[in-house]
Amino acid sequence: MSASAPAAARVPLPQGFLSQLEERFGANLQTGAAILEQHGSSESHFEAMLPDAVVFAESRDDVVALVNLCREASVPIVPFGAGTSIEGNAAAVRGGVSLDLTRMDKIVAVNAEDFDCVVQPGVRREELNLHLRDQGLFFPIDPGANATLGGMASTRASGTNAVRYGTMKDAVLSLEVVTPQGEVIRTARRARKSAAGYDLTRLYVGSEGTLGIITEVTLRLHPIPEAISAAVCSFDTLKGAVDTVVQSIQCGIPLARVEILDALQMRAVNRWSKLDYPEAPTLFFEFHGSENHVAEQVETVKALAEANGGGEFAWSNRPEERSKLWRARHEAYYAAVNLREGAVGWATDVCVPMSRLAECITETQADLAGASMPATILGHVGDGNFHVVFSLDPNSADELAEVSALNARLVERALAMDGTCTGEHGIGLGKQEWLVAELGDAVEQMRVIKRAMDPQNILNPGKIFSL
Amino acid sequence: MSASAPAAARVPLPQGFLSQLEERFGANLQTGAAILEQHGSSESHFEAMLPDAVVFAESRDDVVALVNLCREASVPIVPFGAGTSIEGNAAAVRGGVSLDLTRMDKIVAVNAEDFDCVVQPGVRREELNLHLRDQGLFFPIDPGANATLGGMASTRASGTNAVRYGTMKDAVLSLEVVTPQGEVIRTARRARKSAAGYDLTRLYVGSEGTLGIITEVTLRLHPIPEAISAAVCSFDTLKGAVDTVVQSIQCGIPLARVEILDALQMRAVNRWSKLDYPEAPTLFFEFHGSENHVAEQVETVKALAEANGGGEFAWSNRPEERSKLWRARHEAYYAAVNLREGAVGWATDVCVPMSRLAECITETQADLAGASMPATILGHVGDGNFHVVFSLDPNSADELAEVSALNARLVERALAMDGTCTGEHGIGLGKQEWLVAELGDAVEQMRVIKRAMDPQNILNPGKIFSL
Repeated sequence: MSASAPAAARVPLPQGFLSQLEERFGANLQTGAAILEQHGSSESHFEAMLPDAVVFAESRDDVVALVNLCREASVPIVPFGAGTSIEGNAAAVRGGVSLDLTRMDKIVAVNAEDFDCVVQPGVRREELNLHLRDQGLFFPIDPGANATLGGMASTRASGTNAVRYGTMKDAVLSLEVVTPQGEVIRTARRARKSAAGYDLTRLYVGSEGTLGIITEVTLRLHPIPEAISAAVCSFDTLKGAVDTVVQSIQCGIPLARVEILDALQMRAVNRWSKLDYPEAPTLFFEFHGSENHVAEQVETVKALAEANGGGEFAWSNRPEERSKLWRARHEAYYAAVNLREGAVGWATDVCVPMSRLAECITETQADLAGASMPATILGHVGDGNFHVVFSLDPNSADELAEVSALNARLVERALAMDGTCTGEHGIGLGKQEWLVAELGDAVEQMRVIKRAMDPQNILNPGKIFSL
Repeated sequence: MSASAPAAARVPLPQGFLSQLEERFGANLQTGAAILEQHGSSESHFEAMLPDAVVFAESRDDVVALVNLCREASVPIVPFGAGTSIEGNAAAVRGGVSLDLTRMDKIVAVNAEDFDCVVQPGVRREELNLHLRDQGLFFPIDPGANATLGGMASTRASGTNAVRYGTMKDAVLSLEVVTPQGEVIRTARRARKSAAGYDLTRLYVGSEGTLGIITEVTLRLHPIPEAISAAVCSFDTLKGAVDTVVQSIQCGIPLARVEILDALQMRAVNRWSKLDYPEAPTLFFEFHGSENHVAEQVETVKALAEANGGGEFAWSNRPEERSKLWRARHEAYYAAVNLREGAVGWATDVCVPMSRLAECITETQADLAGASMPATILGHVGDGNFHVVFSLDPNSADELAEVSALNARLVERALAMDGTCTGEHGIGLGKQEWLVAELGDAVEQMRVIKRAMDPQNILNPGKIFSL
């Protein structure tokens, strides 16, 4: 399958470079076919673009050493975490070294009194939450996949809890970063806010590994709420479900999670996770707060749902029931892709102002009705963000062209509503032309920054834009 | 009085430049002594550094025209709003043109369903809130002064509501900016979140006019809460007040505002605002939510206050009572400066992790006890942020040196606790050496960005750092 990679020559490694790497990294340098394949492929439809080598970093010093070797030899470095990104963000477009950070997986500090923690970039969000649970704390950002926190920072991830707790731009207090010059910098102190100079923290968050390599992340945490209630509610129409969410937000209800799944997505979830929900447009809710406050929120939202053609609320209040419910939601992508045997997925996402959400989803649904492959709608509707997942025959050029056109119409629709071409997946390889359609000359300012901070273009070259 | 301005030559305007300005701007070009004085002075202790001319912009086109003229002639531009910044942020260090944006004061759009609005940079926060009130909406960021929203974005302002609603980094959804090249860019669409490329919005927020000139701001709004309760409570000790706040935050109470004022600051407030509060360490609280939810929050906080040596809560629940209470808080700076006749103010601010706040304030109080001029402590303690206001004899070099040393010890204390040298005032002229002490080599990355985006250094040169 083809991908919309920028035309960029793949440069062979300079002679003797692998020996230099081997000397420094020993067994942490790997060049076996399976390892290269794993680091150059993605969970989505992009063709594999393999690195020439993989280096497993175990420390900041390893990262600095690799950056210095690569800079001196002008070899690309592609930072790699859990490999769960969706827009080809970790593909080795120009070859070079895939820098695997998953072995830097220490939780460095938990400052419970300050509601923050310091982690290495390879820590995964589920492991962090397991670690925090006994202290009554949790880290809310949840993109579905059990991604690494370095990867989540790099792609400005968000997910199911963002409506209440924000995205990685809000969750990251400070970063330790290795610059392309091999310097180790810290972008901020551990204070909750600061007006000290340019906001480098948020410049690196979402920069997809193109400006620096994250070697430590300081994260905001939250107290586990006194009461958590989760519920599922089916609707007569997709629009009824969307309107319920929009009206709840407009009433100021601090929904902790609110996810929409269309009828086909519910069928996929039932099949994949062996459940028996009604196969109709559905909202998954979660409410956080004190017992009384949660009860108050639920009362308002139930009334709104009823007025919009919603059915009964099926409650999951015990932790194990809630886990089952959210596991089903988290597996929705795999469930959708597997509506067809042997298919691969193409997941796209857009985000629009809340007032346009019902219209955007309704028009998208109509457009998808004519698609020749399964295509589901699901998303974090409390933010105005939703996804379409296409289940694609990997050997059909026609299907690829069809999805490409459907995706283009979706993004154009979102942009026409003053929305964005990606709420949370990032630009990577797949959305580069749409970034320009969305932000025009602002992209040139991004290029100016990239050229100045990484003049040799060694960090994840070919991502976000070509230079 | 001297200020810690970087050593930079003041360059005279090129011949004929004023005529060019006059041709383009007519009566909107001003060079009278009083106007220059007003635009080159500040509310704080910095010596006046006057621009050579003031241009009042009425439109984006005016800004573009001025930027182009100034770039071609290599003349500095210093953006100017309400002139309420505190670290000399709008001083014309190298002369040039002060660009007054206060006539760009239109509220362009209010999108009530989306909880956002679009304003020109000269709109002031109080006028915006007056405009929004009938629609049940409000803009929460409140630095005390009735600042312009462009200025607030430029300094990454926050203030009394930040503990609940965040700072300008959270409030700004998107910016329209004129670059030093005279291009007009928009940094983001109106969606609530986006992963589309580098976060230019947050790079410009807090950049103090050194990277681009803000010509439009899109802001997040919030629904006016169903119930608002405000209260004042005195404590036996400053530490008891601080501990009450820290414990409330740790209990997950979503305080909307919580401000600390020490005994001397309370005396100043009583004198200035003709009130009769006890002259003891005091907390000003505000609670937002539903009736029940507010009642719940109040109950918890009252219990914590009592356990920490707090007295009765004096409630202000009617809007006009609340306004009186918060007006007294907003005038605290003027009240403190005016503890001595003919004095000028020096306001400094730091922010530390919550777990270190009591220690930081207690040590600061002890240090200030030996000061030879009035010095008050007040601040947004829910964020770990507090200010010291010195009431200074403008003709005493000794006092200036003494305050300079007290300020240095305060910042060093905050940095040693992993805090920041400024929670919300910015770097401007006054905190440049502390920025380097705080962030080290990260400051070089900021310089790289500045040099790349403004290669001629025409935008507010000499602020944040010297190049």
